[in-house]
Amino acid sequence: MSGADLNIVNDTLVLPVPLPLDGGQALAGVEVAYQTCGTLNADKSNAVLLFHALTMDQHVVGTHPKTGKPGWWAKSVGPGKVIDTGRYFVICANVLGGCMGSTGPASLAPDGRPYAMRFPVITIRDMVRAQVALLDALGIGRVHAVIGGSMGGMQALSFAANWPERTRAALVIASTARHSAQNIAFHEVGRQAIMADPKWKGGDYGGKGPENGLAVARMAAHITYLSEEGMHEKFGRKLQDRSEKTFGFDADFQVESYLRHQGLSFTDRFDANSYLYITRAMDYFDLAEEHGGRLADAFAGTSVRYCLVSFDTDWLYPTSESRGIAHALNAAGAAVSFVELSAPFGHDSFLLDVPAQDRVIAGFLG
Amino acid sequence: MSGADLNIVNDTLVLPVPLPLDGGQALAGVEVAYQTCGTLNADKSNAVLLFHALTMDQHVVGTHPKTGKPGWWAKSVGPGKVIDTGRYFVICANVLGGCMGSTGPASLAPDGRPYAMRFPVITIRDMVRAQVALLDALGIGRVHAVIGGSMGGMQALSFAANWPERTRAALVIASTARHSAQNIAFHEVGRQAIMADPKWKGGDYGGKGPENGLAVARMAAHITYLSEEGMHEKFGRKLQDRSEKTFGFDADFQVESYLRHQGLSFTDRFDANSYLYITRAMDYFDLAEEHGGRLADAFAGTSVRYCLVSFDTDWLYPTSESRGIAHALNAAGAAVSFVELSAPFGHDSFLLDVPAQDRVIAGFLG
Repeated sequence: MSGADLNIVNDTLVLPVPLPLDGGQALAGVEVAYQTCGTLNADKSNAVLLFHALTMDQHVVGTHPKTGKPGWWAKSVGPGKVIDTGRYFVICANVLGGCMGSTGPASLAPDGRPYAMRFPVITIRDMVRAQVALLDALGIGRVHAVIGGSMGGMQALSFAANWPERTRAALVIASTARHSAQNIAFHEVGRQAIMADPKWKGGDYGGKGPENGLAVARMAAHITYLSEEGMHEKFGRKLQDRSEKTFGFDADFQVESYLRHQGLSFTDRFDANSYLYITRAMDYFDLAEEHGGRLADAFAGTSVRYCLVSFDTDWLYPTSESRGIAHALNAAGAAVSFVELSAPFGHDSFLLDVPAQDRVIAGFLG
Repeated sequence: MSGADLNIVNDTLVLPVPLPLDGGQALAGVEVAYQTCGTLNADKSNAVLLFHALTMDQHVVGTHPKTGKPGWWAKSVGPGKVIDTGRYFVICANVLGGCMGSTGPASLAPDGRPYAMRFPVITIRDMVRAQVALLDALGIGRVHAVIGGSMGGMQALSFAANWPERTRAALVIASTARHSAQNIAFHEVGRQAIMADPKWKGGDYGGKGPENGLAVARMAAHITYLSEEGMHEKFGRKLQDRSEKTFGFDADFQVESYLRHQGLSFTDRFDANSYLYITRAMDYFDLAEEHGGRLADAFAGTSVRYCLVSFDTDWLYPTSESRGIAHALNAAGAAVSFVELSAPFGHDSFLLDVPAQDRVIAGFLG
């Protein structure tokens, strides 16, 4: 599949006015880096806005410029695929606070130095606000659907709850309406690992920065993306390129080698301060709290059609979280379908080959 | 309850001969620091050997010399308590590789410098071997029971499987016969956090050492000791001493503050290299592998009475692990009782107030 068939466009928008933030500030000169594929139809009614997860970016399809690997949802987005670029104009933007072109802590502040920890703490709603501004700039009033998994699902919820007139439908996969104590705890471990690395320097690192701390953060988080059963199937207690334990501290076990690789490779493509800011935004996310404490009130009077998907082996955002959202949508009288899919891969299932998910997405897009 | 009533004795044994290790070496001059309470009867038949978990030590009762807090099982061990020191002579030794008096990486090697990473990688069976030598030195042929939770349960299993003639019974709580891929993964995150800290210096730190790395390791591990539900009950999304989120990176949430405290306080009482060695021993533990690959063969012909206890909210060593051990014991024709208890605290339940556990222990000791 060539880029031409997909009609991939990578571009950056500079927002014309300062972006108001939930923290009370307004951020001037915000850049939103985004990718589109497919073709916007004449009445601009065929747009699908995808939201990416914590460690991903706008490169849904095509070749990722840093890793050289296919985009994160290349298996599902393209001509004739589940999200058919022959029908839909797919948009995905790097989140505010990110490190792939959108304004984030590595961006230059007006004084010409990187924001670093002077970057304002942002929220999921702030990320969405930047993407609503992108739709404005593209002249798209209402999208066919917003779709996201994990942190992308939080954005889809936030978009549909706060800008319900801007989408026909919202598909929320493997996500949650609020971060739990355990979710916050895992993120806090990652942040402390980064901040404990002397190369972090209070955020004012040049170049690579706290790679060791960021790798540890990624390793801890990565465990939460896999199911215990999936790890057992994939690794068990298998040894890495050896027939006997070494009685040392090398990566004797395959799972150790795998995690070390996940940690190290992550530091090649991700900014440590972005990791701090994005995890903070996720921890702050509580859609009910934003709407007076009752989740159903976030959806009052909505005309958005919702679809919720969870995975039975996801212990990061387990099915009970999606069920809670479904109950709130029911209480609000919203149109909602909810399905728990069986897949062995844990939270990461939403990115992997789960045919049942494809059927749900295709059916929902209609 | 005064120390006199408990008859607490803290002592250290120097093993008279080198201790053979599973890694092939023999370690000379091994010291085993231990605590006893109660009184050994005339025929030395009333001893109960307790094994401690990863971050604990021989201070089962009395006041811990470093923390000033009660011993880790003071609620269950004492005159008239579940493990009644009026009847039993209770022994608990700091594990080989530990940092509370038994020989470990902080101990001086024959060249007068700390072993640090020159300390041999040890196994759970090596820890037990040192404690069998302690029983030899105390003139105790056969104990009434061995008891342990978590890593203590691994030692209890190893003791009963490898020295079945030395105990009448084995009580294994919240434990496993082998570390899973996920168990190994969490430990590997902790080790990498320690080794990534520049103050670790390849293990050759003087004094405090890699406190930041050790704190991160402890934080990551601590999450696995609690249940998601328990964390939700205890912390939820409650804020710490503030009414609003600060839009910063302070510990806004109580769970963050709690975890930071857990991490920091741990560094006051634990040695980072010990943490590396003990977690490695746990990861290496696979009782079946030691016995030809079939767990039942570890228990062939045993006369030891086993009791297994798991907790329904323990996701570190879930009930399925204990069930697997029970099945192997059944296959070996051993006497075994197995109970899953309901308790909200996750893995840590074995240390907390769970009356049903008290009843099981009291009933099993007879």
